[in-house]
Amino acid sequence: MKSIVAGIAILLSVQAVSAADLRTDALTQFKPIPAEAPDVKGNPFTPAKVDLGRKLFFDPRLSASQALSCNSCHNLGTGGVDAGPTSVGHGWQRGPRRAPTVLNAVFNTSQFWDGRAEDLKAQAKGPMQNPIEMNATPELVLKTLKSMPAYVDAFKQAFPGESEPLSFDNVAKAIEVFEVTLITPRSRFDQFLNGDDKALSTTEKAGLRAFMDKGCSACHNGINLGGDSYQPFGVVEKPGADILPPDDHGRFAVTKTASDQYVFRVAPLRNVALRAPYFHSGQVWGLEQAVAVMATAQLGSELTPQEIKEVTAFLGTLSGEQPKIEYPILPPRTEATPKAQ
Amino acid sequence: MKSIVAGIAILLSVQAVSAADLRTDALTQFKPIPAEAPDVKGNPFTPAKVDLGRKLFFDPRLSASQALSCNSCHNLGTGGVDAGPTSVGHGWQRGPRRAPTVLNAVFNTSQFWDGRAEDLKAQAKGPMQNPIEMNATPELVLKTLKSMPAYVDAFKQAFPGESEPLSFDNVAKAIEVFEVTLITPRSRFDQFLNGDDKALSTTEKAGLRAFMDKGCSACHNGINLGGDSYQPFGVVEKPGADILPPDDHGRFAVTKTASDQYVFRVAPLRNVALRAPYFHSGQVWGLEQAVAVMATAQLGSELTPQEIKEVTAFLGTLSGEQPKIEYPILPPRTEATPKAQ
Repeated sequence: MKSIVAGIAILLSVQAVSAADLRTDALTQFKPIPAEAPDVKGNPFTPAKVDLGRKLFFDPRLSASQALSCNSCHNLGTGGVDAGPTSVGHGWQRGPRRAPTVLNAVFNTSQFWDGRAEDLKAQAKGPMQNPIEMNATPELVLKTLKSMPAYVDAFKQAFPGESEPLSFDNVAKAIEVFEVTLITPRSRFDQFLNGDDKALSTTEKAGLRAFMDKGCSACHNGINLGGDSYQPFGVVEKPGADILPPDDHGRFAVTKTASDQYVFRVAPLRNVALRAPYFHSGQVWGLEQAVAVMATAQLGSELTPQEIKEVTAFLGTLSGEQPKIEYPILPPRTEATPKAQ
Repeated sequence: MKSIVAGIAILLSVQAVSAADLRTDALTQFKPIPAEAPDVKGNPFTPAKVDLGRKLFFDPRLSASQALSCNSCHNLGTGGVDAGPTSVGHGWQRGPRRAPTVLNAVFNTSQFWDGRAEDLKAQAKGPMQNPIEMNATPELVLKTLKSMPAYVDAFKQAFPGESEPLSFDNVAKAIEVFEVTLITPRSRFDQFLNGDDKALSTTEKAGLRAFMDKGCSACHNGINLGGDSYQPFGVVEKPGADILPPDDHGRFAVTKTASDQYVFRVAPLRNVALRAPYFHSGQVWGLEQAVAVMATAQLGSELTPQEIKEVTAFLGTLSGEQPKIEYPILPPRTEATPKAQ
């Protein structure tokens, strides 16, 4: 009996050491999500601004049809994305790419799959004006918002002392500040990084080890396990045209540089288990399959079925606490509010 | 000085008497919204069921496109309706009638503009299956919900002891119970009914008096100031085809009774100032104009501009406290979840 107890004690001690080693290695590549939303340079956080941004994020009257809001495609109830594979926009048009998640987007170094927006403020202006998304114009958005006294007041409170508080730039700034609050801390992975050995199961730990040792974390690293670099999709082997449609040249469309052909921003993996389907084309519906595709296309090494299961299990630990948002009561329209188009 | 004070005291006393008289008259026709949601016969309220109903109400995956939820057309941020005049449905099709508000709908004796659903449970089943709305089928809805273990559990908790908790009937029951909680108590009108003389301004009191004396309250009465009887639109004079499209025969389509030609359920007026455009056709954008149309069409008496302003001011006091709803985090889809169509 004594030797069994001693044996267990040694085993636990070995496991603790091994968990500590795993954490030490992981902390050289990953960071936990902070408990509080970070500051945004040039756009200080105030409760009035966040509240205004929340209203704007959920307000379908920012679209020409007045039927589509930011939340239509970046649904905060489903991991910050829609049901996919691509999004329904104005006139039931479909965009060419999967909606990226708005959750933890502040930790990406750029926005959109091709990184064409440098920050969330710049990003927010895109879909409002895109003819196949919200199909509005800055003029229409401002005319709409200015027609509602409660919005005029809310902009004054959110941007005090400015000569023109209700501007398109401030619409984007308010949405940015709200979106910055949409972080998902305290995932089990973060609990592990922060010192809790038991936050991950043995399988999940094996998955984390494989994720680092097999090379996934060479690109999927940092706070978001991605979102901070660009890589060609198909470093080793191009996926089929269903997954990598030949007409979508990725970052090449932004930089016009030959080496950016089929280059995309590395997908951030926080909450990835909550937001199938995967890849910019949204054509892969299972996370295990997505892991297998990545191994073949990017690493050039088939993972064993066991390794795929372990890495997938690890990815499941990246789901954090989802934001608790009170659904906003929006300013009522007036007779001066433009009608839906 | 003494006589001035006495004069003011008499004036206040006269006003108090007059307010009391107005309240006495009003209470013979109207009732305040209760502070608590009412019970639903055959569908007892439990926190688990309300929570499930909240998730279903906001879940776009109940539609074939997985892009439209109950909240798309009955937006809780804008008075329980969309931007109008009619709603965007599957494939960008437009329905023929304005979305009715879901707020306080429990106090209506029937649902839809033509009263074809006897209660909210029956109503909830309609849009899910309507080809120009959510375009789903009961089979598709059940297959979708059963593919997500968190929904399977939530139905077990909401309908304990039932042999088949996840049924289409229970989907509707959960939505009904959630919708019953969507009441807007403590409007200024209700504060007045409950004894606060100062809750209404002099103009608003004059509007309430006119609303009763001119005959509006003959149909717009009860808790919802409407919603509990059927009347022909155009009792005295038919409005133009823009407001009363000749192809929409109203309740006649339900009853096939000649006397139900162009008969509609009397519109409930709670929160009416928050939810332009007006009438089943959604073609009148201002509340003053809507009041004027009603006077001509239903009462046969032109109201003076002053009376229209007063009645409109009174209608503005019907806006109550809007429901505070936490935006739900929805169960994540699985590989078994049907794809969007």
